[in-house]
Amino acid sequence: MATQTKPVLHGYFRSSCSWRVRIAFALKGIEYDQVAVNLIKDGGQQLTEQYKTLNPMQQVPAVEIDGVTLSQSLAVIQYIDETRPGPRLLPADPKARAQVRMISDLIASGIQPLQNLSVLQKIGAEKLPWAQHFINRGFQALEPILKQTAGKYCVGDEISMADICLVPQVYNAERFKVDVGQYPTIKRLNETLAEIEAFKLSHPSRQPDTPAVLQA
Amino acid sequence: MATQTKPVLHGYFRSSCSWRVRIAFALKGIEYDQVAVNLIKDGGQQLTEQYKTLNPMQQVPAVEIDGVTLSQSLAVIQYIDETRPGPRLLPADPKARAQVRMISDLIASGIQPLQNLSVLQKIGAEKLPWAQHFINRGFQALEPILKQTAGKYCVGDEISMADICLVPQVYNAERFKVDVGQYPTIKRLNETLAEIEAFKLSHPSRQPDTPAVLQA
Repeated sequence: MATQTKPVLHGYFRSSCSWRVRIAFALKGIEYDQVAVNLIKDGGQQLTEQYKTLNPMQQVPAVEIDGVTLSQSLAVIQYIDETRPGPRLLPADPKARAQVRMISDLIASGIQPLQNLSVLQKIGAEKLPWAQHFINRGFQALEPILKQTAGKYCVGDEISMADICLVPQVYNAERFKVDVGQYPTIKRLNETLAEIEAFKLSHPSRQPDTPAVLQA
Repeated sequence: MATQTKPVLHGYFRSSCSWRVRIAFALKGIEYDQVAVNLIKDGGQQLTEQYKTLNPMQQVPAVEIDGVTLSQSLAVIQYIDETRPGPRLLPADPKARAQVRMISDLIASGIQPLQNLSVLQKIGAEKLPWAQHFINRGFQALEPILKQTAGKYCVGDEISMADICLVPQVYNAERFKVDVGQYPTIKRLNETLAEIEAFKLSHPSRQPDTPAVLQA
């Protein structure tokens, strides 16, 4: 059976999109192997011809699973959810599912791509205010949405793909010195989620490719 | 029953994300009302306090449906697919679904946000080469993926959300003077899809808010 082979995650410890996939695997209790793709070293290992066959976008993550290679973290997470047992990563109710996807896409399309490494490299010297602008714009929209949808977690009281997207984005916000305290709902949810084992195990400070100086 | 009230699409004729939702409604045979949000007039009607309550990201589209207001076009499309009869917009097979989502997200997260109006306004004078760079980067990745997944349409022989994302992105590419002929699979799929009634009816040249000079 194809699922007896462990999935392989090609990722980078600090990539928020790789972290999303690590959280999903951890929540589902799925064992997987990691192959490090260092986005900085050698000018960026994601740019090699070899990696390009795994993900033609030359970004992380790429996941080999069940005989196929998938990229785009939300596609991977939903594939895992639809094919593996364990806690649901999207709720059963269609409206709640739509809210989970809306929040996930607000982050995955509305914030993350604009503060991605390749974009910031193109922006150059102004990259910090650029990243702060787009993270703040996204969080200003996310805060009132989460005020309406959140219970204990982003949508109601069950952990979902929305939470999987939120925590790595808050981590990025902090790296770019955004004051997350301006967004009390985001801050509260992030603090709650940070205590959960699946989010801790998958944290950038605890990966096989985390440099010693950044290890937790 | 909530579904007896027609959904309301707040959108803009030329917005590729609004067009995605129009295609989905047309493929499903769902009647809906349109409210025009002019992204240029009055400095951008999406920036009003009134619109912000519909979509705090101050982008189009926003869709009122079944008593909820949703934004993020892929969340809306999947909600429609999960709650309405008519042709499936995502295939039943999990691997094919994952491929549809991978292609959709490559466009919706990997290309569109980087050539979005608000980003180009921030880029200023260099906006044309900027948009061309990111559209070409995305299409260079999309072309080999589609070579593997495509049949008559983006994934196999059934129209899906991937096709819904592709056609408006090719339209944007042409607006930004990208030579789509460099990407034979993208070009072929776009030409095939452009002949389909749901794609024609929803085209930017045929909307209630299309300026007379741009009407087909």
